[in-house]
Amino acid sequence: MSLPFTATRAILRKREGLEHPDGEIESLVSGLLDGSVADYQMTAWMMAVFFKGMTVGETTRLTRAMLGSGSELPSWGGGSRIVDKHSTGGVGDKISLIVAPIVAACGLRVPMISGRSLGHTGGTLDKLESIPGYTVHLEPARFMRIVDTVGCSIAGASQEIVPADRRMYALRDVAGIVESVPLIVSSILSKKAAAKLDGLVFDVKVGSGGFSSDRERARLLGQRLVETGTLLGMRCEALLTWMEEPLGAAAGNGLEAAESIRFLRGESVAGDLIEVTYEVAAAMLRVSGAEAEDDARLRVRDAVQSGRALERFEAMVRAQGGDTGVIDDPDVLSTAPIRLEVHSPEPGFVQGVRARAVGEIVVDLGGGRLKADDSVDPGVGVWFHARSGDPVEKGSILAEIHARDLSEARTAASRLLAAYEFGPAAPVRVPLVLETIVPDPSATAADESMRPSR
Amino acid sequence: MSLPFTATRAILRKREGLEHPDGEIESLVSGLLDGSVADYQMTAWMMAVFFKGMTVGETTRLTRAMLGSGSELPSWGGGSRIVDKHSTGGVGDKISLIVAPIVAACGLRVPMISGRSLGHTGGTLDKLESIPGYTVHLEPARFMRIVDTVGCSIAGASQEIVPADRRMYALRDVAGIVESVPLIVSSILSKKAAAKLDGLVFDVKVGSGGFSSDRERARLLGQRLVETGTLLGMRCEALLTWMEEPLGAAAGNGLEAAESIRFLRGESVAGDLIEVTYEVAAAMLRVSGAEAEDDARLRVRDAVQSGRALERFEAMVRAQGGDTGVIDDPDVLSTAPIRLEVHSPEPGFVQGVRARAVGEIVVDLGGGRLKADDSVDPGVGVWFHARSGDPVEKGSILAEIHARDLSEARTAASRLLAAYEFGPAAPVRVPLVLETIVPDPSATAADESMRPSR
Repeated sequence: MSLPFTATRAILRKREGLEHPDGEIESLVSGLLDGSVADYQMTAWMMAVFFKGMTVGETTRLTRAMLGSGSELPSWGGGSRIVDKHSTGGVGDKISLIVAPIVAACGLRVPMISGRSLGHTGGTLDKLESIPGYTVHLEPARFMRIVDTVGCSIAGASQEIVPADRRMYALRDVAGIVESVPLIVSSILSKKAAAKLDGLVFDVKVGSGGFSSDRERARLLGQRLVETGTLLGMRCEALLTWMEEPLGAAAGNGLEAAESIRFLRGESVAGDLIEVTYEVAAAMLRVSGAEAEDDARLRVRDAVQSGRALERFEAMVRAQGGDTGVIDDPDVLSTAPIRLEVHSPEPGFVQGVRARAVGEIVVDLGGGRLKADDSVDPGVGVWFHARSGDPVEKGSILAEIHARDLSEARTAASRLLAAYEFGPAAPVRVPLVLETIVPDPSATAADESMRPSR
Repeated sequence: MSLPFTATRAILRKREGLEHPDGEIESLVSGLLDGSVADYQMTAWMMAVFFKGMTVGETTRLTRAMLGSGSELPSWGGGSRIVDKHSTGGVGDKISLIVAPIVAACGLRVPMISGRSLGHTGGTLDKLESIPGYTVHLEPARFMRIVDTVGCSIAGASQEIVPADRRMYALRDVAGIVESVPLIVSSILSKKAAAKLDGLVFDVKVGSGGFSSDRERARLLGQRLVETGTLLGMRCEALLTWMEEPLGAAAGNGLEAAESIRFLRGESVAGDLIEVTYEVAAAMLRVSGAEAEDDARLRVRDAVQSGRALERFEAMVRAQGGDTGVIDDPDVLSTAPIRLEVHSPEPGFVQGVRARAVGEIVVDLGGGRLKADDSVDPGVGVWFHARSGDPVEKGSILAEIHARDLSEARTAASRLLAAYEFGPAAPVRVPLVLETIVPDPSATAADESMRPSR
């Protein structure tokens, strides 16, 4: 660009809906970190991005600039491909705990840097920390060694790994700029790309319990994640999956860890959880570049049925200091002192259980966070016995509340009952994977036109 | 509102295009001053206002909240009405210096709190400070005493008078949020309303040298100023006036002060300056509530021709410590050591002189500011001998550059020549006052619908 960089000029450019020239986004990000761009300029720019959007090219440059603000992992040694998945967050979404060992058992390496629960959605790290001794705080060298030897590791991000993302996210959170597609894309991808992945699968949750009830908007996010991830050199796929009802039978950290172990043990599991988990795992095999569609599904099922996925899970827990006794007896993860059954008030069929309400109930039981520094109780949550499609009698057990005391349990029980919907006939079953988004092979720079973010 | 105030919630509400409930805007403004609302939240909110606009009701509440952040002037004693005018800023716009004493001579009181030049537009305070000894720094009590005794005073705002506006404007300036109609309206009106006016006239400049070349946008600003000012209890009118060419013969601080004095002395003056000045002065009489349309124009002309306006100007200069000798000999204000004539390269008629270019030439001669803390040279500027409509021969004097040195004068001369446009015939003369905006008597709360600011 001809004029020297100023943050004010950059803000005005985006405010007027123009594309940033090379170097301008990079200067905004480096300026935020060195103090030459003020926080109040960054939020003004991000709010302009909210209204005016960014091209895929701009989003890619922003992601690279954020990535460049930290220390990426060192390069991986030769060997099998490196893949990961990212979920936009849902209720009962314990897929990460299950697919990491499955995909490791299929011979790939999965360096999964995960997050914590916030608001009504759960967090993978909190679920794993319900296993006594399991640590999510790993030095990069140890994290990579576990991935190389076990095939997978699930841990938290170190402070150094993308400081620009931490700063920008903290500002977005308090300045009302969370819901911007290009800012979401760059936040997700900067953290994932720091792990030098070959392939990455996105699970974009559609519905009131997930990213957005607006399927168009969810599709746009999926497309942007795939397009931008591809420009960053990763093979990408995005699945749009339904999140109107909690996924699986458990919601709550320890209960979900227990359900994940049961899944890997091949025990009876909720069909919806099997459906989405297998699709995500198969997509991870596909983005590794090695697998055809049908082969991927077969190998995923075989990894579970043979017990090899459970073995990888056990090896990961052991490598990260966790008590592997939970694998033989997942019930020890149900530590809440109070259990209260919720009974059906009428006969009929469950039409649905509102996911967002369940997420909020778990938070209020002590199992989630409203603020980033809240602590979580691993034992509390809800175990479902009847979900959508299930027939019930008056008095049937719908679910079991796990709580710290009876008063909280009773409040949760009445709210949970209100989250249930009943009807005279079984609802029509819909597939949970709504669509799969793969890179558009005809995409060129000309497609990087300005599209508003919403 | 039911939920307690948080800045994040307020930002989200505006971002989604909703109207702020009572108290929310007030909490944003008071929070900015007490530190509970961060600068980075304020800029995010103001950028959302840029995109989503504010209703007249919201703008009024914002203005009141800003006003409440400082110390208004004490109430005026009984006597004549209190009126003022505000210009959005133009090139050669010395109207304030002339109308204040005219309106004072018509028996009203004019407490005019003015600003300084910034960018290509001039500032009233800088023009007055070219008069040796004239001070614009007056304690409120002295300012009011001068207004009460002389009839007018032109001075700068004290630090205490609307601190919220100072904070918000400083943020808007560096965060690229200057051009938002509701934020402009509240900034202007909070400062003007602090002087407890009965009536207020807005001179909104249309054209590349003024607020906006987009007449619709200028009209929107004028309408919003009138509507909001009316809700704040003032009688208001807005004039949209043309600003494609500098107003009058002089551009530059001392030269403009000299031209203003010549105007008040009844000496030969540029017709465009007479046209707009008389209209603004007449509008000020009208908003005082005392005058019918025709009477106002007659009284304005009589105030000048009788010498009473000049007398008021002299009394104001004396009261503010200025050397009244400049009134007998305005030429002493032309202090620049170098004068360079600019000659016409061809015969024909001047079609126009681009105002914005002239404004930038004056800044580069040292007579304006690019940053708020630049100092200005009172002597430099341009004196025009030929402007649009004037016939010229090859070699006729078009203008005289007043400069600090020959090199700067030559640069200015060649740029000034480029700002002239010539043609074979006189251009069609257009009225400079494009329209007058008065309060809509049928306006109700129902008209306060959400309209985007641009």
